[in-house]
Amino acid sequence: MKKGCPFGTHRVIEPKGVLPQPATKIENDMEIYDNEILINVKTLNIDSASFTQIKEEAQGDVEKIKEIMTNIVATRGKHQNPVTGSGGMLIGTVEKIGPALEGKTNLKVGDKLATLVSLSLTPLRIDKIKEVRKDIDQVDIEGKAILFESGIYAVMPTDIPENLALSVLDVAGAPAQTAKLVKPGDKVVVIGGGGKSGLLCLYEAKKRAGITGKVICIGHSQKSVDRVNQANLADVCFSADATNAVEIMNKVREVTNGEMADVVINCVNIPNTEMASILAAKDDGLIYFFSMATSFTKAALGAEGVGRDTTMIIGNGYTKGHAEIALQIMRESETLRKIYEELYA
Amino acid sequence: MKKGCPFGTHRVIEPKGVLPQPATKIENDMEIYDNEILINVKTLNIDSASFTQIKEEAQGDVEKIKEIMTNIVATRGKHQNPVTGSGGMLIGTVEKIGPALEGKTNLKVGDKLATLVSLSLTPLRIDKIKEVRKDIDQVDIEGKAILFESGIYAVMPTDIPENLALSVLDVAGAPAQTAKLVKPGDKVVVIGGGGKSGLLCLYEAKKRAGITGKVICIGHSQKSVDRVNQANLADVCFSADATNAVEIMNKVREVTNGEMADVVINCVNIPNTEMASILAAKDDGLIYFFSMATSFTKAALGAEGVGRDTTMIIGNGYTKGHAEIALQIMRESETLRKIYEELYA
Ligand SMILES: NC(=O)c1ccc[n+]([C@@H]2O[C@H](COP(=O)([O-])OP(=O)(O)OC[C@H]3O[C@@H](n4cnc5c(N)ncnc54)[C@H](OP(=O)(O)O)[C@@H]3O)[C@@H](O)[C@H]2O)c1
Ligand SMILES: NC(=O)c1ccc[n+]([C@@H]2O[C@H](COP(=O)([O-])OP(=O)(O)OC[C@H]3O[C@@H](n4cnc5c(N)ncnc54)[C@H](OP(=O)(O)O)[C@@H]3O)[C@@H](O)[C@H]2O)c1
Repeated sequence: MKKGCPFGTHRVIEPKGVLPQPATKIENDMEIYDNEILINVKTLNIDSASFTQIKEEAQGDVEKIKEIMTNIVATRGKHQNPVTGSGGMLIGTVEKIGPALEGKTNLKVGDKLATLVSLSLTPLRIDKIKEVRKDIDQVDIEGKAILFESGIYAVMPTDIPENLALSVLDVAGAPAQTAKLVKPGDKVVVIGGGGKSGLLCLYEAKKRAGITGKVICIGHSQKSVDRVNQANLADVCFSADATNAVEIMNKVREVTNGEMADVVINCVNIPNTEMASILAAKDDGLIYFFSMATSFTKAALGAEGVGRDTTMIIGNGYTKGHAEIALQIMRESETLRKIYEELYA
Repeated sequence: MKKGCPFGTHRVIEPKGVLPQPATKIENDMEIYDNEILINVKTLNIDSASFTQIKEEAQGDVEKIKEIMTNIVATRGKHQNPVTGSGGMLIGTVEKIGPALEGKTNLKVGDKLATLVSLSLTPLRIDKIKEVRKDIDQVDIEGKAILFESGIYAVMPTDIPENLALSVLDVAGAPAQTAKLVKPGDKVVVIGGGGKSGLLCLYEAKKRAGITGKVICIGHSQKSVDRVNQANLADVCFSADATNAVEIMNKVREVTNGEMADVVINCVNIPNTEMASILAAKDDGLIYFFSMATSFTKAALGAEGVGRDTTMIIGNGYTKGHAEIALQIMRESETLRKIYEELYA
């Protein structure tokens, strides 16, 4: 049996020397190396920025979506959208565990798990696409995937339905980071607060900012704004276009009495919202970009361009305990669980 | 006289609603609005990532470099490299000040200044390219530029030669951020530490980490490594390829006795170095990406992909007092000033 590198570099075909995530092509042969885990895949949860792009390219046609997805995996050996660079995650059952992992992992063959590393670095083979659930970015397939030794995962909880858990785990990094960044008394703006990750961020922000703080949700569709208002998830919620930076700035100025936000959390799924995030924040505010449609240069040069001393954080999808924190919200908040079950499960 | 928006949105041609930096085309007519400053441009200092790309595309040919630069400005109304997205900065003299700025600015007509906002958002007209200084990314031109009301600048110091000041100001954000991020006792890795911004970061890192800390420089060419060693700017300096993440990780492990870095500062000018930065840092370490060749998704998904709880900061080119901090280094350190004069002035 071949010996593997913990990070999976042994599967990188192109370019040589890089890790599986930045690689343009990786090997998706399903014969495992000694430190790999083979997964029988049930469902892919495609990253929202990626799935939005694929749906647009396919003009909503399901057969065309299947074709695009199949082509991506055939070309790259992994489901990494070439336009957005992003992936998603998957659920499945453990089929084989490499012998080098014995004593190092608690997993057993047959365990049901969700991978918490991006599909953009996960060796994947799609044998058949069974069902595309267009509205919730989930796709049921027949196929196999590989989890590397350094890869993280969550064993599926037994008290939360599978599709619900999958949706929550997909965006688990966002609420966990929110919990770390928001302090009592903070004014917090969540852009895209009516979306999957945004709703969880609102919940955590409210909890952390407390009664002396103020949580402001910026949604897009009237539907999502109404939903947030009805569920009382934010202190203020309004609809605005996050690509219009000046409009966002003016509205945030209004609802914060000119003070602007201490923390801005960007959870949108479309490009060109960096400037709105920057202008919504205080001069020495903090911005957490969870959106995968964020452009590094637009953020860096945009802040400099308006002379703002904002701290801008790249939305690392992982932080310690993120799966537990996110799933716990589903147990704590009946309101949020209902919304989630309705929308994403 | 037409009234302008502080951020310069009045000059955006395409797409509507965005700010000048993310815009693909802005108006570079040199008739000023009431809150603009007209600058008679002397020298452009092209961003290193951008100039490296242009030189490669031109295969080093000066006439071809001129053609590419002229085309960029003709197409976009600003010097924003379409491949890297980045700009640079300029020096020139104040030619006209919009009446709405009276009492708001200390500038007078005739003042010599450097703009500290990116060329990627600065309306620019090039009438003639006079000289291309290929090795230091500087280009002398005849032309005009506009500074918006929210734009930041530094009046040129009188005790530091112009070209030297320009080189220092170009990367002023990096040492100033280093000063904010590094704490006594920290182990600090500067990737690309032998370059223009890297050298200043080494200096600030040494100062802040103190004798209980350790500053590690990763260079590329033997020349730049020798330079850092001779000048004693780092505690350890070695040559390695920052696109090879695993090699970098192993070397950093070796020189930190397995502890890895508290802070990693990325100052390279080439793509695909995100993973090396992540693997060089402690699990809960901090990475400051100053490099404009950083990919947001590669950083975000790369860290998640290896289960690292690293805090990753987008290199905002501006932070309070950055120009003063960077110029001060030239006054404080004779060694560094000599190197800078030799290389960049
Ligand atoms: N860093 C990571 O590891 C990681 C992991 C997963 C996902 N993500 C990223 O996180 C982002 C959000 O994911 P998600 O699953 O929460 O997406 P989502 O459920 O589709 O939510 C997107 C939100 O953006 C809002 N929006 C769209 N266009 C807007 C506009 N012009 N102005 C203001 N708001 C607008 C939508 O508003 P409406 O609902 O009103 O239409 C929605 O609330 C995506 O970019 C995704 O790639 C990152
Ligand atoms: N955030 C901002 O506002 C801002 C402002 C200005 C510049 N920047 C960015 O900062 C970065 C650095 O700028 P700079 O002016 O300091 O550039 P620079 O002087 O050209 O330095 C680049 C450094 O990268 C090193 N390098 C190149 N390839 C490497 C490799 N494969 N492995 C390891 N090191 C490698 C070089 O090493 P050798 O010297 O040995 O060849 C050099 O030390 C650029 O990406 C630039 O775009 C950002």
